[in-house]
Amino acid sequence: MEGKTIAHSRAVMSQIVLPSQANPAGNVHGGEIMKMMDNTAYVVAARHARTNIVTARVDELQFHTPIYVGALVTCRGELVYVGRTSMEVFVTVEAEYLQQEKPPEIALTAYFTMVALDDNGVPCPVPPLILTTGEEEERYNMGRQRYLRYKSSQRKQENAEK
Amino acid sequence: MEGKTIAHSRAVMSQIVLPSQANPAGNVHGGEIMKMMDNTAYVVAARHARTNIVTARVDELQFHTPIYVGALVTCRGELVYVGRTSMEVFVTVEAEYLQQEKPPEIALTAYFTMVALDDNGVPCPVPPLILTTGEEEERYNMGRQRYLRYKSSQRKQENAEK
Amino acid sequence: MEGKTIAHSRAVMSQIVLPSQANPAGNVHGGEIMKMMDNTAYVVAARHARTNIVTARVDELQFHTPIYVGALVTCRGELVYVGRTSMEVFVTVEAEYLQQEKPPEIALTAYFTMVALDDNGVPCPVPPLILTTGEEEERYNMGRQRYLRYKSSQRKQENAEK
Amino acid sequence: MEGKTIAHSRAVMSQIVLPSQANPAGNVHGGEIMKMMDNTAYVVAARHARTNIVTARVDELQFHTPIYVGALVTCRGELVYVGRTSMEVFVTVEAEYLQQEKPPEIALTAYFTMVALDDNGVPCPVPPLILTTGEEEERYNMGRQRYLRYKSSQRKQENAEK
Amino acid sequence: MEGKTIAHSRAVMSQIVLPSQANPAGNVHGGEIMKMMDNTAYVVAARHARTNIVTARVDELQFHTPIYVGALVTCRGELVYVGRTSMEVFVTVEAEYLQQEKPPEIALTAYFTMVALDDNGVPCPVPPLILTTGEEEERYNMGRQRYLRYKSSQRKQENAEK
Amino acid sequence: MEGKTIAHSRAVMSQIVLPSQANPAGNVHGGEIMKMMDNTAYVVAARHARTNIVTARVDELQFHTPIYVGALVTCRGELVYVGRTSMEVFVTVEAEYLQQEKPPEIALTAYFTMVALDDNGVPCPVPPLILTTGEEEERYNMGRQRYLRYKSSQRKQENAEK
Repeated sequence: MEGKTIAHSRAVMSQIVLPSQANPAGNVHGGEIMKMMDNTAYVVAARHARTNIVTARVDELQFHTPIYVGALVTCRGELVYVGRTSMEVFVTVEAEYLQQEKPPEIALTAYFTMVALDDNGVPCPVPPLILTTGEEEERYNMGRQRYLRYKSSQRKQENAEK
Repeated sequence: MEGKTIAHSRAVMSQIVLPSQANPAGNVHGGEIMKMMDNTAYVVAARHARTNIVTARVDELQFHTPIYVGALVTCRGELVYVGRTSMEVFVTVEAEYLQQEKPPEIALTAYFTMVALDDNGVPCPVPPLILTTGEEEERYNMGRQRYLRYKSSQRKQENAEK
Repeated sequence: MEGKTIAHSRAVMSQIVLPSQANPAGNVHGGEIMKMMDNTAYVVAARHARTNIVTARVDELQFHTPIYVGALVTCRGELVYVGRTSMEVFVTVEAEYLQQEKPPEIALTAYFTMVALDDNGVPCPVPPLILTTGEEEERYNMGRQRYLRYKSSQRKQENAEK
Repeated sequence: MEGKTIAHSRAVMSQIVLPSQANPAGNVHGGEIMKMMDNTAYVVAARHARTNIVTARVDELQFHTPIYVGALVTCRGELVYVGRTSMEVFVTVEAEYLQQEKPPEIALTAYFTMVALDDNGVPCPVPPLILTTGEEEERYNMGRQRYLRYKSSQRKQENAEK
Repeated sequence: MEGKTIAHSRAVMSQIVLPSQANPAGNVHGGEIMKMMDNTAYVVAARHARTNIVTARVDELQFHTPIYVGALVTCRGELVYVGRTSMEVFVTVEAEYLQQEKPPEIALTAYFTMVALDDNGVPCPVPPLILTTGEEEERYNMGRQRYLRYKSSQRKQENAEK
Repeated sequence: MEGKTIAHSRAVMSQIVLPSQANPAGNVHGGEIMKMMDNTAYVVAARHARTNIVTARVDELQFHTPIYVGALVTCRGELVYVGRTSMEVFVTVEAEYLQQEKPPEIALTAYFTMVALDDNGVPCPVPPLILTTGEEEERYNMGRQRYLRYKSSQRKQENAEK
């Protein structure tokens, strides 16, 4: 299978946050933002693999700053690491308050692991990732380490359950 | 008031179209797309004026190709013409089918006229538009002609109602 | 195909506007109302043609007065003009504030052009329109002129793109 | 307080039923229709009392025929009986399948008892009902009997709980 | 068919009530709660019959106390009576205000009659109900009386319509 | 502040998954489930702290088995570890297919870190956790280690950004 670059599948999704998505104090519920992040990771993975996609894991999802009602929330997703059938997508979320002339700030970050499925719902191979800069390579290697760590902790868990 | 460029307020909004937004034949209902287009025009106008914004008119909204369930719909909005308190935003809509390696195509276009409101809900002045290319100027002049045509047809209508 | 009257397909749709459909100042987002208007035009066209229906254009959509949260919004649609496969529906929107004893006022108007599709998604003929009053005839002729104007501007656009 | 007729507050609400409101067999979930019926009863009661309104009871809600996805569902509500602070609204629901030339049939009926609340959330008097036909009078008397029956069964229940 | 106990199908559904589900005074619309109750009755009936399920009737739905925005609403459903193809579910609704250390109180109660449908949409037999306490038997007998009363009033109605 | 047990704040939330929450292959989108999990963690934390609550982190969110349209999804949340102002909630998700007589299986697990906020939006102290079994103590200690690890990795990140 021919490789594809990170730029090929990069995705941006935006949405204005409504009062119905926040608590009475005006803080947007985390779950609403997580749903947008998952959608963004889905688009990235589908553009890379051109197959059905399911979410397999989410790690290190951190809220750096709260998001308030009325914000324009923008999720950006890009591939970090690609295994045989799984893809790790790094998603960042920015909040912009449209009535203010102020650059948006990063409100959340997370790693989503997505898996490509064939028409029978079985994991299937995805194209390799073409890395074009040193920074991309460095992040790829860190992603690979995370991937191996998940694998090994999952194996331990499965053994413990036996 | 200091002018702002068209690039300053340009906006992109994306969303995946769900089965609940389509008729049984799989065609997405026009109203769902119109709602996304209106949101995009709102973001553009709010970034330019940094005030409350209401929609005043929509003109020449055309569906060039149908959109089907599962498409990633991307709306792009940019200012064409700016009056004293109103802003004309040109919105285009692209549909991309994520399981296919094929460039997205333009599915809809429309002109939205948005008005800036102050804290009392009264129309208020917006920054002028800084034009940077000949093409931007040409489109600005055509927007100005549309604006004057609406104004005069509205005046005729009001006179007819007297 | 046997003709049908305008009364045969006339439609009324009502809904109470929720806080989640408005900006923080309480103005209902234009897109929410446009979606209701499109639904109404869909019902009118489906009652006339008894086929699948898609929206083809929206023209001269005007907000005459703002609509606020809590209003009972009522859309009324009726056929103005019928071509071979397309139908022009005039939609008006009234807002009524239920806590006040005051007649509702017209908040929006627009022309929706809807197209009948057969089971293969191809435009198909619709019944002719039976006109019963002089006023209906007059509006029909104005609708016909709009229709011819759209056709010719579309042809110019297509030629320009060649 | 001056009386009002039944015609004064009569209400009609319509909506097309979406796939997301049905079970996999295509039957619309009862709860979706009940929500529309409650909205209709709310509009009727608010038009009569011009106050805040809450639902107090629902009785004899019957599904006469199933409703399927894609139907245009139309709820009609009208006052049957009016007490000092409560109003009984009879709501009927029709389902119309737009692709078929066939009159809609009554799919559900129910009695909703709504209560008028003043600005402190306390029940407050509503205008009397002006009856204009013998049929309206007959239904009013039956409504009055239902009202007295609820009252007495509630009193028994409260005594039993002591 | 083997019988099943009431405990086998008992169901609990919870949800936090959002501002978009309430009127401007903060009272949750009755219809939103009725939809949750219907869902709960659906789960109970589906667990008992393991078939498709439709709602046939709702009776004696009473609002004992209002529910306000932000409440955690919990619906509990359990079978009371089981006929040949129909099941009566008693549903109670509690509202809990999470910021207060106070036990939740019962806000609504109602009886839902659900019918089991086979794959052709025809009512089909359901397992008998195994009663394990005297209280369950007493409630079963009262449910049976309600069931016979509905049947007879429906028959009268049908005769009247002839 | 007086301590509270784990049982005091344990929460269960259930919902039936709709077609609009799934991809065309019938797999429920991860984001929909994540939103339900976040709601459950919110209820647990609010019951423990009785304050406003925001989500701070999500870790080790794993999809063990896919969830399909029509499933009854049940989220269970309970406190694992409590710091000065933050609370770690372990959330599990079960999927039950109501038409089948088969025990539900665990489909997802995750750790949510929630923070208590006072009325000014500033983190505020929460009651200590009363542990009643050896297993609870063991899990508490593991939660404490995770907490310290996040803290230290966050500090490194902040230093790196200087």
